[in-house]
Amino acid sequence: MNNFRFWSPTEFIFGKNTVKNIAASIQKYGGSKVLIHYGGQSAIRSGLLADVENELQNALIDYVKLGGVQPNPTDTLVYEGIRLCRQENVNFILAIGGGSVIDSAKAIAAGALYAGDFWNIFEGTVAVNQAVPVGVILTIPAAGSEGSANMVITRTDGMLKRPARGHQVLRPKFAILDPALTFTLPPGQTAYGIADMMSHVMERYFTQTPHVEVTDRLCEAVLQTIIEQAPVVMLEPHNYEARANLMWAGTLAHTGICGVGREEDWASHGLEHELSALYDVAHGAGLAVIFPAWMQYVYPSGVGKFAQFASRVWGIPETENLKDIALKGIQALKNFFISLGLPVNFEQLGAKKSDIDYMVEKLAINSGESLGNFRKLDRKDARAIYEIAAQS
Amino acid sequence: MNNFRFWSPTEFIFGKNTVKNIAASIQKYGGSKVLIHYGGQSAIRSGLLADVENELQNALIDYVKLGGVQPNPTDTLVYEGIRLCRQENVNFILAIGGGSVIDSAKAIAAGALYAGDFWNIFEGTVAVNQAVPVGVILTIPAAGSEGSANMVITRTDGMLKRPARGHQVLRPKFAILDPALTFTLPPGQTAYGIADMMSHVMERYFTQTPHVEVTDRLCEAVLQTIIEQAPVVMLEPHNYEARANLMWAGTLAHTGICGVGREEDWASHGLEHELSALYDVAHGAGLAVIFPAWMQYVYPSGVGKFAQFASRVWGIPETENLKDIALKGIQALKNFFISLGLPVNFEQLGAKKSDIDYMVEKLAINSGESLGNFRKLDRKDARAIYEIAAQS
Repeated sequence: MNNFRFWSPTEFIFGKNTVKNIAASIQKYGGSKVLIHYGGQSAIRSGLLADVENELQNALIDYVKLGGVQPNPTDTLVYEGIRLCRQENVNFILAIGGGSVIDSAKAIAAGALYAGDFWNIFEGTVAVNQAVPVGVILTIPAAGSEGSANMVITRTDGMLKRPARGHQVLRPKFAILDPALTFTLPPGQTAYGIADMMSHVMERYFTQTPHVEVTDRLCEAVLQTIIEQAPVVMLEPHNYEARANLMWAGTLAHTGICGVGREEDWASHGLEHELSALYDVAHGAGLAVIFPAWMQYVYPSGVGKFAQFASRVWGIPETENLKDIALKGIQALKNFFISLGLPVNFEQLGAKKSDIDYMVEKLAINSGESLGNFRKLDRKDARAIYEIAAQS
Repeated sequence: MNNFRFWSPTEFIFGKNTVKNIAASIQKYGGSKVLIHYGGQSAIRSGLLADVENELQNALIDYVKLGGVQPNPTDTLVYEGIRLCRQENVNFILAIGGGSVIDSAKAIAAGALYAGDFWNIFEGTVAVNQAVPVGVILTIPAAGSEGSANMVITRTDGMLKRPARGHQVLRPKFAILDPALTFTLPPGQTAYGIADMMSHVMERYFTQTPHVEVTDRLCEAVLQTIIEQAPVVMLEPHNYEARANLMWAGTLAHTGICGVGREEDWASHGLEHELSALYDVAHGAGLAVIFPAWMQYVYPSGVGKFAQFASRVWGIPETENLKDIALKGIQALKNFFISLGLPVNFEQLGAKKSDIDYMVEKLAINSGESLGNFRKLDRKDARAIYEIAAQS
């Protein structure tokens, strides 16, 4: 087990009708002038935005609104949010939505207190030492951004999708998680979320760091829960209990608790970002295509870990040789994604094999660097994985 | 799943040589005049106390010391600590030790900023709204107090051992966890710690709250890790990796993450407190005696949950009727405790059957109240459980 620091100070407020805590929670963390940041029409249509505005008005909390966050959120709206925060002296940002809205809110929060161009943070040249406090009302369990120190933004100029990780001051002050808010998520978005949260666990699970039994088992616990609850929410979208278990699993998947003490991987996220940047597909859909392909390519670098994944997570009997068990585990994951209606190859995703050269070229691999850790991938490896994903 | 709030803001600094972070960590949380609180000779003999004093002196941090915390820490030393904090204008308390030292430090931290008698907090008549910040260097993985909002103190007058739970401001600011500091723990103390951390999970695991799959699986993950690592640390006390997994499991067992969304039980802790108050035995030893007895008495109130415990945690095949599987799980726990050299009945603990009346009388059950939640226990039930523990 490696040395680590783990700090997850977010206050999670979970359950039915917890949105009614919103004014008190904002005030607890010093908010008096709020930027409400949200996505498209669903927050309006569902009445959630109006409910929040009512609560804030009743508590005499002043606010401005900035909607319109799209999946794969872009720098354009972040710049607008930063301008608005400065102009209106905003001292709290409330994100209502899923990972895209929260990530956009985090980028605004960091950018508003940084004198230069916020994109420097995503180029890795600047650390985030201060930020406007952020609170969350989560409506899409998927990205885990409500409990993480990470964010991903796409730069419109050149469609560069880039993550910024480990900026601890960006962890939300609180996250309100009401499973009932997820009842109306369409099946596709529910499934994308499932692939996303599973990927967050698996990016941590597949490590070469030895002796990480306790976090291995936590990862397996979260994965097993997701695998168990996913078919239920697909069949019964209004099943509160299944939605609740899935929602909390999605948060646990990404607070960091599943990754402490080990070198994490994150190659699949890197490979996927080029897909969703180029085709503007859902991140979770891209991950469902990339992750099994990545597994098929890298499993020989640690067949024992893949066999453990197969037997403990998928219940594959440990009666055969490790390679066969490992391959059955990968196939089980792929079958599971298919059962949720997720794409598992380029064609189903709407991606083109002929674009592989372009994606490989754009990958965030600087000269002399590699992608991932379970197996260090160069551009040749990345191309091979894209080709597996294209063919399968 | 029940509604819940989960807030665990403690910064966990885990790994080899992490004690060298002590001065920076204290300063990060505003400490300039520190009370170093510790137990007996081991912190002195090991050189840990001297190391810490050196670090503080080098950083020009002023401090006073108060040692002498005993297992089952008492109010006497808490009163002395409170006096010292006020007299010396202490603004940070550093606990070096295990649960007894940390709990004593928490009680001092709360009492120093409370004008009345700190014992009121343990009588449940006063909430803790402010406290001197506490930091921890953990030397005994067991109580989980380094990441919890709880504490237990014994009032010398009448030997009343009482818990105070859910005082969130008492969560330590940071906890330094170096597994190498636990190499020299004697086998007995190691085993008591294992029983204690397993009990913290099981007090949460056994619930009547339905649909708590994700936390059930987290509990099982932590228990399986402990069961796997415990024999290794007993055989190889200097095995860093096994000590590391066990230490982190002990913390996870009690931050609250294993209990969210469910009604927890805590009857066994209540029953045990009378044993350790009366005989001054280790809390973990008492729990090893009480928990299997409690299980044997209450399992008919939820045989399915006990069967799940047996099959998922202990690998008992699910081929028989639920009752038989449940009973095999309880026996497996008992056998495991025996394999660690733990007492599992009154005689082995040095407790007397003839004292049962006295213990039942002193139990913290007020008129009209009961103990625990999986099955609500009255004094008659408590007596029956003590009798099982006495006979088995």
